[in-house]
Amino acid sequence: MADQLRHDYLGCTGHPTIKTPNIDALAKRGVTFTNAFCQGPVCGSSRASFYTGRYVCSHGSTYNGVPLRTTEWTLADYLKPQGYRTAVVGKTHIKQDHAGLQRLDVDTHSPAIANTSGGFESYAHDDGLHPEQVLDPKLKYNAFLRDNGFAGHNPWHDWANAGEGPNGEILSGWLLRHARTPARLPDEFSETAYMTNRAMDFMRESQDQPWCLHLSYIKPHWPYIASPPYHNMYSGDDVVDAIRDHTEKKTTHPLHRAFMRHGESKHFAKQGVRHTVVPTYMGLVSQIDTHLGRLFDYMSQQNLFDNTIIVVTSDHGDFLGDHWLGEKELFFESSLKIPLIVYDPVNGHGNKSGKQIDSLVEAIDLIPSFIDWSGNQQQPHRLEGRSLANLSKGNEEQDWRHAVFSELDYAWRPARAALKQPADRCRGTMLRTRRWKYIHYLDLPPQLFDLETDPHELHDLGTEVSFDNIRNALQSMLLDWSTSRAWRSTLDNAFVASQMGKATERGYIFDQW
Amino acid sequence: MADQLRHDYLGCTGHPTIKTPNIDALAKRGVTFTNAFCQGPVCGSSRASFYTGRYVCSHGSTYNGVPLRTTEWTLADYLKPQGYRTAVVGKTHIKQDHAGLQRLDVDTHSPAIANTSGGFESYAHDDGLHPEQVLDPKLKYNAFLRDNGFAGHNPWHDWANAGEGPNGEILSGWLLRHARTPARLPDEFSETAYMTNRAMDFMRESQDQPWCLHLSYIKPHWPYIASPPYHNMYSGDDVVDAIRDHTEKKTTHPLHRAFMRHGESKHFAKQGVRHTVVPTYMGLVSQIDTHLGRLFDYMSQQNLFDNTIIVVTSDHGDFLGDHWLGEKELFFESSLKIPLIVYDPVNGHGNKSGKQIDSLVEAIDLIPSFIDWSGNQQQPHRLEGRSLANLSKGNEEQDWRHAVFSELDYAWRPARAALKQPADRCRGTMLRTRRWKYIHYLDLPPQLFDLETDPHELHDLGTEVSFDNIRNALQSMLLDWSTSRAWRSTLDNAFVASQMGKATERGYIFDQW
Repeated sequence: MADQLRHDYLGCTGHPTIKTPNIDALAKRGVTFTNAFCQGPVCGSSRASFYTGRYVCSHGSTYNGVPLRTTEWTLADYLKPQGYRTAVVGKTHIKQDHAGLQRLDVDTHSPAIANTSGGFESYAHDDGLHPEQVLDPKLKYNAFLRDNGFAGHNPWHDWANAGEGPNGEILSGWLLRHARTPARLPDEFSETAYMTNRAMDFMRESQDQPWCLHLSYIKPHWPYIASPPYHNMYSGDDVVDAIRDHTEKKTTHPLHRAFMRHGESKHFAKQGVRHTVVPTYMGLVSQIDTHLGRLFDYMSQQNLFDNTIIVVTSDHGDFLGDHWLGEKELFFESSLKIPLIVYDPVNGHGNKSGKQIDSLVEAIDLIPSFIDWSGNQQQPHRLEGRSLANLSKGNEEQDWRHAVFSELDYAWRPARAALKQPADRCRGTMLRTRRWKYIHYLDLPPQLFDLETDPHELHDLGTEVSFDNIRNALQSMLLDWSTSRAWRSTLDNAFVASQMGKATERGYIFDQW
Repeated sequence: MADQLRHDYLGCTGHPTIKTPNIDALAKRGVTFTNAFCQGPVCGSSRASFYTGRYVCSHGSTYNGVPLRTTEWTLADYLKPQGYRTAVVGKTHIKQDHAGLQRLDVDTHSPAIANTSGGFESYAHDDGLHPEQVLDPKLKYNAFLRDNGFAGHNPWHDWANAGEGPNGEILSGWLLRHARTPARLPDEFSETAYMTNRAMDFMRESQDQPWCLHLSYIKPHWPYIASPPYHNMYSGDDVVDAIRDHTEKKTTHPLHRAFMRHGESKHFAKQGVRHTVVPTYMGLVSQIDTHLGRLFDYMSQQNLFDNTIIVVTSDHGDFLGDHWLGEKELFFESSLKIPLIVYDPVNGHGNKSGKQIDSLVEAIDLIPSFIDWSGNQQQPHRLEGRSLANLSKGNEEQDWRHAVFSELDYAWRPARAALKQPADRCRGTMLRTRRWKYIHYLDLPPQLFDLETDPHELHDLGTEVSFDNIRNALQSMLLDWSTSRAWRSTLDNAFVASQMGKATERGYIFDQW
């Protein structure tokens, strides 16, 4: 998993200038899902859905830093019983619910809950953003850098995420204007290189048992700054146009307007910013590709490449100026849609190579897929996604879903203050079919886009009277979804179904006159 | 709390023949809510809402026997820190989530989770239904009966819930045809008397500290059988007509049709059943009233009556043949509406005596009320109800809610098989305003009743074309509700609101070009 990697910034997904030869080669040997979506276009909630296989409203971790309820099952709960070592190298952005554990008098060091990173063994857990103010003095990547001669209190910032000025001054990568500066660190010591090495360490260590590794790169998430040669691998000429239209600035939708006033959006609207930042963003993607190539080579040498299923994806996209926005969170495709490539050399390979699959798939489909691939036929009732195992073989799926869903909680953002919303009324809920994208907001007008006539989502039909019928129909679909979540999480459906009429057998008689 | 007590089977709520003088007197000194509703018209889900202050979709315990998630806070979590002893005498119908505790490696005997009955200290916890097949050999009520000479393996059944035939044979109260038989037990040993005594024991023991007691009678829930004189306190002449019309038998609504085919519904449709069962049901209500009178007298003697807030309510109603149905679960008023009387001698009494309040209130409003009455000003973010403290003083509330909501999961019932529904698609979600009752079902047509022109809910407008606009508007309200639940339970709103813009302060800079 890459962080904040747009669906359309890979060679194999259609970017005209970016170079991602290793991922492209993997895609040629696997399948590419061209309609894959995240469950919430921001790290915390999206990842909680990836790791639990449940929609945001079901797991409750609606934003970055919202502790995941202790009752939520995660990947390890499902794979460990199958004998899999399940670990993370890199980012999870999952926060443990300490207060919840305390209430149950649970020792937070108990082995049962030690793996708090979304259910992963913390092989090299590192959430990747380390400003001075909240720096973990024991950060392993910093120790690694110091061991290699990159000194200081926070080499993550001073070397890996900063450039150098003409007089030796440190130019922080936190600032967009430094994006084209080379990081002060050779590529081999970069976060991407380091995490790749740790992934190889994990594979080396785990030879004798089945494993599932979440290799979770922090890049191309900001700070947008790259080690040479990636800092100038691309120029302004390689940058594709932003998806935006001047008419959007006059949108009447209050939330789009409020988000356009956020700092990051205003920056990306300025002259020169995209041509400074986007080449580095692309460089960071190519850097990941290079190191993935190195990883794939290692796996080939170790005979792992033919018995390991590889999934390449991202937690959400990055507006990079699209729709006059920066960052992510709103439901436009640049933020919502994710790359998804599945390379499965184990099951029915051959007939699928290089295939593009346009079925509507979601982040929550991955946990069911892993369970399926692990040989477990039963799909636990808590899960709300569907296994991709069959689609990944190139087979058709009957009765596949007709819509995907995603959720937003913007309570943390200045938009909340601008709209004077209480913290618990900052909800957006999106339904996207092949043709329509409908977004329901609390206390705000809905948004509606016709993806057939307006694939770039430039014309919001959310309040156009002539679309009343469409909106009512989509609203009805959304209500169906919203009232059918897997909230009965403590009992499985097979058990429930088996109980029909059993009360009488147990002696609760209400059946004789 | 009584169990399965209809809103309209008290003297003070308008029943023409039933005698409930003690509750009526309490109502005269307190306030009566004439529009109070439960969150799910079946014991388990309704009570989980009463005890957590959350809608069914939020706490996830959708039916009897669905373990309550260990992360759900209950009454004790809120009142214990205020110094209250919080205990139950009688029924809770809450099932502890043993598997969930095991997963977290929590000792189920840990003091932190010992109070598993919805957060209550189990002073005399007794869920009230004890068929032979699942009998707890340590049931305290059985020990009490045996100590008093009512012998046998299960005196709960053989004496308290059975009558006697002419040849000494035991006539089980499980069978409706025995409803008019006197139970084999004098009233003073009945469950209702016993629980009342245990409540007095609790009050005696707790003199020195504030307490909150959930006195939770199992009656008038079936088995419909009563000790003398309550078994023949009423005759067929005292029975009011069922709320039903022959046209309802031809309803096209599949769920109403399927429920009409359940055993209990068919029995109540038979000649003579209502006139046999309803008088006993009424007797059981009068029996509770008598013992409450005894309790109130005790409290007066102990000077507790002037410093104790008393709430009289029920978990749901009982169709008793209304709409050609038995039992409960569907959303007709006989099942959905609950009695709710608040006697508050502590706060601003005097101006409110005997007042009837027609504001739309819900079961989930009680936890916020208790928190409010306990002197805690802050309403925790997990709660979805609103304190009734102000309304109970006879004051008006600005911006009170315009609709109440209730939920159904019929996966356990034969209706599921009749409709060929999977166990996770048996959901009904109801919205009721003053005028409209709208019910959304998965995979089934909606139901709609105009309570203004059709207060008895005899004409289902769910598929009438001319009500399209009404249904769309109600659907939109329901979607608003459904997408605004308090599922971000691990962080409170004040904290969330305080975090706006704080990322930059913590050094996560994305704000300078």
